[in-house]
Amino acid sequence: VIKFKNYRLFYLDQTLLPQKEVYRECITVRDGFKAIKSLQVRGAPLIGIFSAYCIYVSLKKFSSKSKLLFFNRLNKNIEYLKSCRPTAVNLSWALERIKTVASRNKEKSIEEIKQLILKEAQAIHRQDIEICRKMVDNGIKLIKDNDKILTHCNSGQLATGGEGTALGIICRAAKIYKNIKVYIDETRPLLQGARLTAWELIKKKVNAVLICDNMAGYLMQKGEVDKVIVGADRITRRGDVANKIGTYSLAVLSHYHKIPFYVAAPFSSFDLSIEKGEDIPIEEREGEEVKKVLGKVEIAPKEIRPYNPAFDVTPHNLISGIITEKGTIYPPFEENIKKYFSCRGE
Amino acid sequence: VIKFKNYRLFYLDQTLLPQKEVYRECITVRDGFKAIKSLQVRGAPLIGIFSAYCIYVSLKKFSSKSKLLFFNRLNKNIEYLKSCRPTAVNLSWALERIKTVASRNKEKSIEEIKQLILKEAQAIHRQDIEICRKMVDNGIKLIKDNDKILTHCNSGQLATGGEGTALGIICRAAKIYKNIKVYIDETRPLLQGARLTAWELIKKKVNAVLICDNMAGYLMQKGEVDKVIVGADRITRRGDVANKIGTYSLAVLSHYHKIPFYVAAPFSSFDLSIEKGEDIPIEEREGEEVKKVLGKVEIAPKEIRPYNPAFDVTPHNLISGIITEKGTIYPPFEENIKKYFSCRGE
Repeated sequence: VIKFKNYRLFYLDQTLLPQKEVYRECITVRDGFKAIKSLQVRGAPLIGIFSAYCIYVSLKKFSSKSKLLFFNRLNKNIEYLKSCRPTAVNLSWALERIKTVASRNKEKSIEEIKQLILKEAQAIHRQDIEICRKMVDNGIKLIKDNDKILTHCNSGQLATGGEGTALGIICRAAKIYKNIKVYIDETRPLLQGARLTAWELIKKKVNAVLICDNMAGYLMQKGEVDKVIVGADRITRRGDVANKIGTYSLAVLSHYHKIPFYVAAPFSSFDLSIEKGEDIPIEEREGEEVKKVLGKVEIAPKEIRPYNPAFDVTPHNLISGIITEKGTIYPPFEENIKKYFSCRGE
Repeated sequence: VIKFKNYRLFYLDQTLLPQKEVYRECITVRDGFKAIKSLQVRGAPLIGIFSAYCIYVSLKKFSSKSKLLFFNRLNKNIEYLKSCRPTAVNLSWALERIKTVASRNKEKSIEEIKQLILKEAQAIHRQDIEICRKMVDNGIKLIKDNDKILTHCNSGQLATGGEGTALGIICRAAKIYKNIKVYIDETRPLLQGARLTAWELIKKKVNAVLICDNMAGYLMQKGEVDKVIVGADRITRRGDVANKIGTYSLAVLSHYHKIPFYVAAPFSSFDLSIEKGEDIPIEEREGEEVKKVLGKVEIAPKEIRPYNPAFDVTPHNLISGIITEKGTIYPPFEENIKKYFSCRGE
C-alpha cells in the first residue's frame, strides 16, 4: 500500500480500486496533502505512517545550510499536513513524533536530522505492522466457528501499515475458524466497503457478502449477524469513538439486537486530551461525493442540497470492547483506558 | 405520472428521473409487467392503479366472441401481473377488484365487461387521488412549525395517483407550516430518495437536504430529526409494516432516540389475512443493482457476492402511528385496526 524504496515514497492510489492498481509517487508535501485529502491514501493508521514519510521526502532535497530555515520549513510542512483531515488523530500523532525527534536533535546537522526523521517514519511504519499483528492476536479470541461478522468501511491492509485492525482480525479469523461469513457495508458515499474491503476479502478468499448500508438492520433482525467489528479514527479518554459515518447507526442497531459491537484500534488512535465524543472535530466533505457516485454518475437533481459528514461518534455505552495491541479494553472504559495507559511502556 | 387518454395508457418512466422526463405507452400485459418489474412504474398505490389500467388495455383489442376465452385471458393476465412484485399488496388488491367486477358481470357482453373493467380502473385511480387528499388532511395534523422531518424512499406523486402518502403529507406541511426542513435518505440501491423524492421536493420548492442512508442516525443524535414519516407496501392486521429496505433501521434508530415514527398508507395497503410481518414475502432483487449504481458504475470487484432484499419489515411496536385516509391509527394496533375496518363503508 505504501512503498518506501531508494529514498522515494510510493503509494497505491485507493480511489482507483478495485478496477485499477496504480502506484503513484509522493515527492512534495503538496502531493502528500492531496493524496490524503482525496482519499488516495486513507485509513487512520496509514495516513499517520504516510504523513511521516511525506515529511521526510518533502525535506530530502532541502539544500540551504540555515537550520532556522530548515525548522521553519519542517514545522510549516507538519502544520500543513495536519490540517488536511481533522478527525483521525493518528495523523497529528505521527507528525508530532516527527516533530519531537527533530527538535530533540536540533543540535545535530541538517543531514543528520533528515536521517533521524526518516528513521522515525520507518519506526512508525514498522511498529504499526507489529501493532496490527498483536491487535489481531487479541481480536481473534473474540471470534468463534460459524460467526457471521458485519463490518463497515475499510480497516484492513489498505488502512494500515500491516494486516489491518478490524478487518485484519476478520481475515485472520476466517483462516483459523470454520465457516466464517462476513457482511460488508458498502459505506456510502465513497464506498470503501464495496471497493476496498470487498477487494481485500476476495483476494484472501474470505466468504463475504456485500450489502447496502441500510440492509444491516434487516440482517440483524433475521439473526444473520453475530458480531460487528469496526475500526476507529479517534477514541476519547472515556471511550467514545469517532469512525466512518454510519458506524453510530450500526452501534445503535447492535445495541437494540443485543449483538456485540467491537472497535479495533491502536493506542495511537486514543486522544486522552478529549473526554467527550462531541468534542471530536467531524470532517464535513464536499456534497458532490453524495450527489455524484465516485465522480461518475449523477444520482440527484442538480438543485438539491447534500450533506456529507464523513464521520460520526459512537458513545462508549454502545461499545462492547475496544481491541488494542495490548489487549481488549472492556467497560467501564474511562477507568480501564486509564489503567492501560498508565502501565504503557513501549 | 400515469396518463389515460383516448383509451391508451401512458406512464412516466421513473428509471430515467431526474435527468429525463419520458412518457412511454403500455399496450400489452407484457409491457405492464416489464414496467413494474423494472421500477419504471413504482410505489405501492401507483402499481395498483397502473396494473388495473394495464388489464384494460391488454384486453381492449380482444376480438374473439368466446367469453370463455376472454375470461381465460383476463385471469391469465391478472395472475401474470400479480406475480410481478410480491411485497406490495396494493397490486393484488387492485387486480382483485378488476377480477371481481368482471366475474360479477359475466352475463354481460364482452364489450360491456371491457367497459366495466375500464370504469373500475378509473375508479381505483380517482379514489386514490381522494384517499391521498384525506390522508394528507389527517397527516398534517401531526406536523408543526419548525419541524425537521426525515423520509425514506419515495412516497409522493410518483408513488400514487394523487399527491402522495408520506411525502404528500410532508409537501403539504411545508406549504402551511413555517420553516419545515426535510431530510431525504438517498435509499440505496435504486436511489428513489435521491432521484425521485429530491426531484419532487425541488419542484415544490421545499427546503430539503439529501443524505446517505447511513447518516440518519448521526442527524438524530444531533437533534436534527423531529419525526420520521415513511410509506408502506403492506401492513399486517397487527400493524407490522413492510416498506423499502432501510425502513426498519430507521424505525430502530427513531425508537432509540425517542423520535416519533409514522407510517402513511391507504387501507388498500393493509393485508388482514396476515398477522405477523415475518409472513410478508420479501422480494429479493438482482444483486447487480447493488454492485452497479443505476446500471452505470461498477462499485465493487466482479467476484463479490451481493445481497439485495428490496424490503424489510418494521414490527408494530416501533411505530408511533399509521396515518390513513380515515384517520391516524394508534397503538394498540391490532385492536384499533380491527375497529377501523369494521366501521369501514366506502
